[in-house]
Amino acid sequence: MQRMIWAVLAAFLLSLAVGPVLLPALKRLKFGQNVYELAPKSHQKKQGVPTMGGLMIALVTLVVALALHTGGFDVKTDMMLAVLLLALGNLCIGFADDMTKIRRGKNGGLTPSQKMICQALLAAAFAAYCYFHPLVGDHIIVPFLGTEWDLGVLYIPAAMFVIVGTTNSANLLDGLDGLLGSVALVDMATLGLLALFAAAAVSGMDATNLGNLAVLCCALAGACMGFLRFNIYPARLFMGDTGSMFIGGAVVGAALLLRLPLLLVLIAFCMLISSLSDIIQITYFKLTHGKRVFKMAPIHHHFELCGIPEPKIVTMYTLVTVALCLLAILSVA
Amino acid sequence: MQRMIWAVLAAFLLSLAVGPVLLPALKRLKFGQNVYELAPKSHQKKQGVPTMGGLMIALVTLVVALALHTGGFDVKTDMMLAVLLLALGNLCIGFADDMTKIRRGKNGGLTPSQKMICQALLAAAFAAYCYFHPLVGDHIIVPFLGTEWDLGVLYIPAAMFVIVGTTNSANLLDGLDGLLGSVALVDMATLGLLALFAAAAVSGMDATNLGNLAVLCCALAGACMGFLRFNIYPARLFMGDTGSMFIGGAVVGAALLLRLPLLLVLIAFCMLISSLSDIIQITYFKLTHGKRVFKMAPIHHHFELCGIPEPKIVTMYTLVTVALCLLAILSVA
Repeated sequence: MQRMIWAVLAAFLLSLAVGPVLLPALKRLKFGQNVYELAPKSHQKKQGVPTMGGLMIALVTLVVALALHTGGFDVKTDMMLAVLLLALGNLCIGFADDMTKIRRGKNGGLTPSQKMICQALLAAAFAAYCYFHPLVGDHIIVPFLGTEWDLGVLYIPAAMFVIVGTTNSANLLDGLDGLLGSVALVDMATLGLLALFAAAAVSGMDATNLGNLAVLCCALAGACMGFLRFNIYPARLFMGDTGSMFIGGAVVGAALLLRLPLLLVLIAFCMLISSLSDIIQITYFKLTHGKRVFKMAPIHHHFELCGIPEPKIVTMYTLVTVALCLLAILSVA
Repeated sequence: MQRMIWAVLAAFLLSLAVGPVLLPALKRLKFGQNVYELAPKSHQKKQGVPTMGGLMIALVTLVVALALHTGGFDVKTDMMLAVLLLALGNLCIGFADDMTKIRRGKNGGLTPSQKMICQALLAAAFAAYCYFHPLVGDHIIVPFLGTEWDLGVLYIPAAMFVIVGTTNSANLLDGLDGLLGSVALVDMATLGLLALFAAAAVSGMDATNLGNLAVLCCALAGACMGFLRFNIYPARLFMGDTGSMFIGGAVVGAALLLRLPLLLVLIAFCMLISSLSDIIQITYFKLTHGKRVFKMAPIHHHFELCGIPEPKIVTMYTLVTVALCLLAILSVA
């Protein structure tokens, strides 16, 4: 518990310290955002704001989590390290995406198939890791009912789907200043608490393992807090795909290791509706040959085009996430 | 713990339900804000936004806290009721202030001496209640050191000073859209957790008593969440003095009953700097016959006049409050 709070505070302060060094460096490297041509017009002013703030989030999380974990790098830290590896793997995919965008000068990115293959391989590795882990396995917890659900070998494709889906959803949610940062802050704090509860239910080495996972979640929550200082409307720094993929990986990784992927419906609700609104929009567009459900997908751009100011949308998403995360905690407490 | 989460969720949902009913009612009653003539120019657009949203906060908190407490209205709920009475007493002072402003059509309020006398009487009553309460008394906890400090009979004037100081500071902090609401949300959640820890350290009736106090804190935190939905920039509803005095009373009342008034330096830091910046500004102005330290006091208006956008100031205040509240939890955990 105390280590968790220290992790939040250390990551917050470290981000505040790193930010002023990183911002000019990113500007010098010309890692400026090229605004997606199809984004709402009000986003044109965001042209040139440095992106890849995700590097800061990842670096701070890594340093703080490694500094504050207990035990050596052995069986007592493998959950923390696995989530870090999943998140960092996703970060690399996002980084490649960001670089492609910056080099071409267009907001295009990796080809979809390149990206998909990398993601699927990473997801398969993590799903297999979960499947064979003694604390995880193929049984997932069914929230509210207090029962478990045995997926058998189907666990692996299901987990892969959840991993790829969540990371891409996090990527889609990162469309407004401070939006994904605020939501991720609440999500990671919640996952940290859930890991703490899980750690309290076991003993010895397993408790240390889950405790270290909780510290990692809190370190990322603190890094998001620090990042928000630079990312809040009007943003001076974006996290880029680098950051959103890293966060998506951490969220889904922690949820899977806690055997709570079903809770992502609550915890990652805002990410999911971004994906769902995109899917609905595209499907409807194709079926009706050109009609739209939303003014623009993902749905946060729809709200924006309805005239709701950017900071208000971010606050509403954050408040909804807080409420749903509290419900998530209730469901397993 | 579970009742606490339910309290947050219930208060949040109730506020969301009450808001759309209350907003037109307040408009019809012409409870519109008359913007303080000396406020930054950008605040002129806030003219006519309904005020007294504090009534919603208080009503929701009251309903949820009374609905979710355990035990009858006896020795097991006296702490919760005492904090409610202190907060409601302050609400009345704030309400009178709001009404005076609305009637006169100027942002003037009660005369300072009328207000001061009411506040002092209320503070004296609550200080005496704490002094004679078996769970509180004249010993206050010194955070970080793990010791206690025996104030003897000096406890009463000291507590009065803290009560009056904190409520007026909360009142001063309520100057930007969403500012006091966000800070109070974090503060009350923290005090709720601290009350939960205190309840875990005792047993029987005392634990129920402190548990009910925790439920009250969480209900107010949820009410602030719901209020923010209407108050966030650009605000459609203000809490008014009605709300800020209520919140100030609840914050200081809970801190005193937990014997943690010294922790207010961390928890209510943002409120305190509002007061301090006001005091510094006025003292310096008088000493130098007209020079100013800040462009405008309280200090959030200074930041505003430095060109920092309103939502950014609110986020920074909230993040700082989260960090300091985590430190506060660490100090007693």
